[in-house]
Amino acid sequence: MGELRVRDVSERELLARILRVLGPASRAEVGPGDDAAVLAIPGGRVVATTDTLVHGPDFRLAWTSPYDLGFKSAAVNVADVAAMGARPTALLVALALPDSLPAAFVDALATGFRDALAELSPGCAVEGGDLTVSETLTVAVTALGVLDGVEPVRRSGARPGDEVAVAGELGAAARGLRILFDRFRDTDGIPLPIDDDVLSVADRHDLEAQLRPRPPVELGVLAARAGATALMDVSDGLLLDASRIADASGVTISIDAGLDDDALTGGEDHALLACFPAGSTPLGFDVIGHVRERSEAAVLVDGVVPSARGGWDPYVDWDSALG
Amino acid sequence: MGELRVRDVSERELLARILRVLGPASRAEVGPGDDAAVLAIPGGRVVATTDTLVHGPDFRLAWTSPYDLGFKSAAVNVADVAAMGARPTALLVALALPDSLPAAFVDALATGFRDALAELSPGCAVEGGDLTVSETLTVAVTALGVLDGVEPVRRSGARPGDEVAVAGELGAAARGLRILFDRFRDTDGIPLPIDDDVLSVADRHDLEAQLRPRPPVELGVLAARAGATALMDVSDGLLLDASRIADASGVTISIDAGLDDDALTGGEDHALLACFPAGSTPLGFDVIGHVRERSEAAVLVDGVVPSARGGWDPYVDWDSALG
Repeated sequence: MGELRVRDVSERELLARILRVLGPASRAEVGPGDDAAVLAIPGGRVVATTDTLVHGPDFRLAWTSPYDLGFKSAAVNVADVAAMGARPTALLVALALPDSLPAAFVDALATGFRDALAELSPGCAVEGGDLTVSETLTVAVTALGVLDGVEPVRRSGARPGDEVAVAGELGAAARGLRILFDRFRDTDGIPLPIDDDVLSVADRHDLEAQLRPRPPVELGVLAARAGATALMDVSDGLLLDASRIADASGVTISIDAGLDDDALTGGEDHALLACFPAGSTPLGFDVIGHVRERSEAAVLVDGVVPSARGGWDPYVDWDSALG
Repeated sequence: MGELRVRDVSERELLARILRVLGPASRAEVGPGDDAAVLAIPGGRVVATTDTLVHGPDFRLAWTSPYDLGFKSAAVNVADVAAMGARPTALLVALALPDSLPAAFVDALATGFRDALAELSPGCAVEGGDLTVSETLTVAVTALGVLDGVEPVRRSGARPGDEVAVAGELGAAARGLRILFDRFRDTDGIPLPIDDDVLSVADRHDLEAQLRPRPPVELGVLAARAGATALMDVSDGLLLDASRIADASGVTISIDAGLDDDALTGGEDHALLACFPAGSTPLGFDVIGHVRERSEAAVLVDGVVPSARGGWDPYVDWDSALG
């Protein structure tokens, strides 16, 4: 007997299982099942982004359930569409699966995708994808979106005098990662299962921010409508991402909200960072600073050049030997 | 000293190298460098598809150069857009790279992408992507396209009396794969470098069809303009792919062109398979049969139900132990 594994089912059967979970959510003219999907793009401009989650640097199965993996894979991609001021309408999902994986893993993964889209980005559905095998579990997602009559908000439009604002929590995902690294690895650095019993309410909150992020997707369109001059997804830490807006816009961003180190440098929060003309920051965003004429530093914190770089660079920071 | 490797450069530097190779090809409103690309979609309908190449089941570095990997990754994706009758306009490319890979590998990979697009799909450019590390080299591509005023051609429109036609060669890619498996593996099945000196002209042709496919991308739009009733990319073998059109259209496809087994069952040719109303098959396509009322078999060859299944299913056919 034994559990049914990916190697025991055909590609067609595996796809049928996934489509059963996803349900009849497709709103595409041509959805899954042909050579390509065909999607209506009102306004004639599509917003497109891709982000891949790889077992090892991006998640570990000891800590991340298949449901959470699907949820996070959807969330981080729709967040990038929202960060252009657009509304996500479709995902393409490419799964590269170890053939030893239980077939039921794929059902749970698809459920995570479905639930993330229903909660974060209603109306967005998985409209296509690809299935292949790999020794390294990899989820490569492309998200498409539409602009609903607003202009895309880039990183380059911030102007001196603008308010700098954030929607969503900062720092929790980094604290969650620290809980995993500090408390759920053995002495060789190998991930251990999470023991719920030793977690405080605050710990659980931080772990959930890391494992099942909930970016404020609908506030992206709101920001564009409110006249945001710059907008981006905070995935690599506030300081590093703010410096990207500062450099693209040729300004200095001054942050003076008394944020702690986790909020300033922690990655993977998928909050939205925006600049608005003074006085026009909309509900849902908290002002954390303002835009100044460019000085030597791209970013100042309480008037001082911050020492920490912050952020996560997989090519420098990932050490596969750490498990 | 030693060679510069992926682990020695930051994500930003690696991206800069790639963009240097790709050159100023972007035609997007927002190209690489922001949270997402923004692309004009004349006609208001986008065609979108994704296909991933994984080291092991999809290619081996002993046989596939980084240039060829880039070329093939681009080619198979634009082929799927063409198979809807659309014109490819943009790729998003997600690279998951072993950190031990030479940084120069990425330059050659990007060159393969650039050259494939210039040759097969002029006007199409890489407009975004993602970089991460993985123990398994993985290239996940999404291709987007536009319809240029034609209707998308699905698999479901074939009607009795239609001609069945193919553009592009059939069987060569399978012969190329057989050359690799039969002649360039050691007794344990481990891939060996290709020795050019032992290859005939025909062998080289077949190997190139396998390693650097050239799908007839521009004939996709031509087929749509000529009134194709069904259209698809032949990636899993003619018999299997023809059965997909037959099942989707509720017809039987009768093939009677004296094709050999390689042409009937070999995968990865990325030829275009189309059905056209009688007498309207355009130049560039060869008629290989016709569409009949549905009988028990989805596909007939010279009037007989074929015995071979044909095609490639990574979940059933891939044995990682074979190297």
